[in-house]
Amino acid sequence: MPELRKDPFVDRWVVIATDRSRRPQDYTVDRELPRAGLCPFCPGQETKTPPEVYAHRPADGPASRANAAGWSLRVFPNKYPALKVEGTLDREGDGPFDRMNGIGAHEVIVETPVHGKRLGAMSIDEIEQLLVAYRERIVDLKRDVRFRYVMVFRNHGRAAGASLEHPHSQLVALPVVPSTVSRELAGMQAYYEHKERCVMCDIVHKERRDKTRLVYDNGEHVVVAPWASRFPFELWITPRQHRASFELAQSAELRGLADALKTALSKLERGLDDPPYNVSLHTVPFAVGEVAYYHYYLEIMPSLSAPAGFEWGSGFHINPTPPEEAARFLREVTP
Amino acid sequence: MPELRKDPFVDRWVVIATDRSRRPQDYTVDRELPRAGLCPFCPGQETKTPPEVYAHRPADGPASRANAAGWSLRVFPNKYPALKVEGTLDREGDGPFDRMNGIGAHEVIVETPVHGKRLGAMSIDEIEQLLVAYRERIVDLKRDVRFRYVMVFRNHGRAAGASLEHPHSQLVALPVVPSTVSRELAGMQAYYEHKERCVMCDIVHKERRDKTRLVYDNGEHVVVAPWASRFPFELWITPRQHRASFELAQSAELRGLADALKTALSKLERGLDDPPYNVSLHTVPFAVGEVAYYHYYLEIMPSLSAPAGFEWGSGFHINPTPPEEAARFLREVTP
Repeated sequence: MPELRKDPFVDRWVVIATDRSRRPQDYTVDRELPRAGLCPFCPGQETKTPPEVYAHRPADGPASRANAAGWSLRVFPNKYPALKVEGTLDREGDGPFDRMNGIGAHEVIVETPVHGKRLGAMSIDEIEQLLVAYRERIVDLKRDVRFRYVMVFRNHGRAAGASLEHPHSQLVALPVVPSTVSRELAGMQAYYEHKERCVMCDIVHKERRDKTRLVYDNGEHVVVAPWASRFPFELWITPRQHRASFELAQSAELRGLADALKTALSKLERGLDDPPYNVSLHTVPFAVGEVAYYHYYLEIMPSLSAPAGFEWGSGFHINPTPPEEAARFLREVTP
Repeated sequence: MPELRKDPFVDRWVVIATDRSRRPQDYTVDRELPRAGLCPFCPGQETKTPPEVYAHRPADGPASRANAAGWSLRVFPNKYPALKVEGTLDREGDGPFDRMNGIGAHEVIVETPVHGKRLGAMSIDEIEQLLVAYRERIVDLKRDVRFRYVMVFRNHGRAAGASLEHPHSQLVALPVVPSTVSRELAGMQAYYEHKERCVMCDIVHKERRDKTRLVYDNGEHVVVAPWASRFPFELWITPRQHRASFELAQSAELRGLADALKTALSKLERGLDDPPYNVSLHTVPFAVGEVAYYHYYLEIMPSLSAPAGFEWGSGFHINPTPPEEAARFLREVTP
């Protein structure tokens, strides 16, 4: 059973893997990635993954049954999960140390049957289908009372942590609210208490007016290079209308978000020669719900420079490309 | 002038470089590192760096003047500083955004005249000399009323952010207390208020008794694999006797710390085939001083796995090597 351990100084949990623990020599192996057709995420290889928990099979496609080819999107539990879905938390302490069992869900969302397709090259329909899958899986996992948060994320490229090339997202349902989320929740709430306005609504308003950090605006969603970008070409995508919970978004809203995500990623892919990047979805914790002070957003972080001793020690980041320059450059890239 | 920008949600500052700003094409260049002798940090190349602010020249060595060969350790301002030392902060806001000028000091500490020497292979005398340099530079920079913190760090290996091979540390004096430090300060203070004991003193006591995460113990300093290690083979080095401010350590104490640091690094270098790593020094902010609840330590973070979307989005880390296994392995490596 993996273990969740709390940092003795700060509100930060670490998943200590036990079942798939790696020994020193394991870190030197640079594994070859499987090719299309042999990849466990490709159609026809469904038996190599755990049984699916969700899939999209086009109505006009070939008739197909669960765990067989014919799907356009497929979700299943991660074969090597960071957290285990069965069991109880068993929270306990040992002097200054706190632990609990590593209970959670860890799922893989295969985004397309096509092995080498980039997300930015997918159609708006395909990306909308992916966002619907995020929503449906969150709604389903929300029913498990042990979970307090679902973190949806995507790693693209080896340098950004992707261990398989086939396009996929992942999600992890967690028994605690992650520190990043609780910190921003507190910050957004403090702003609201002072101003009686949502800080992200204020940011969207300001960025649409100033335009210096605006990359794309389809009227309903904006893509901006954030004011205090930690990384070069970091991007946020957020709805213009206030909404705290991503999973409450209706289909029309997800379609606009799909358009903005496609535009942002295809600009990054073209402008920066397919850089490695991470995406994470910031949405409100289950127990907090639809509040006036939190506002969901997608965060895209290209992995062009690795954090070093200064960043790890201080939490400060040094960003060599001002967001205004990043936005100016990306505005001019044809998606 | 570089700019410090505050994240609009959380207490996190970012240095936005302006003078040395990088354009998209700059990220694809994988520069060749200069060889020994041509390296700007090698003896004889002193004119390639800004004038030194501190140096150690052995009493029994050849007579030598400032900014000429003959030194055994040399400190000078970074030629491409992240922050500028001249100017005023000019803190100001623009709607939801906060900024100030990027005022600070950024110095390079060249640890040895020998280009290819690893820190773990240096003598205890040499490492003690390095720790004395850390202390003397902190004491000096503390006199500048604009600064609230000095972050000392070290990057080893390209994957850990080192852009020159010649062994060196760096320090950055900052006009704000970094968020990592203020968060752990608050956490340590909360523990103290509850228990009336320093949490690091409790940890040292427990780790010396349990021994499962203990890597090395010279009686005065311990090397441990921390309970909630974020990274495989992460290590902490801390004094057994309580001390909040690193810069108050006397020579005998620094000698014991040098022995522990040498042991930790040479075990990592031998056991893991010279991995890339970062070191950062966690010491108490100037304005807080010698309190009972904070306890300085050196943090060593091998860069064996990069953080990905899950880590960035959640602040959670997944560590595939339990610290107990890391400690058992490193205990058995001959330094």
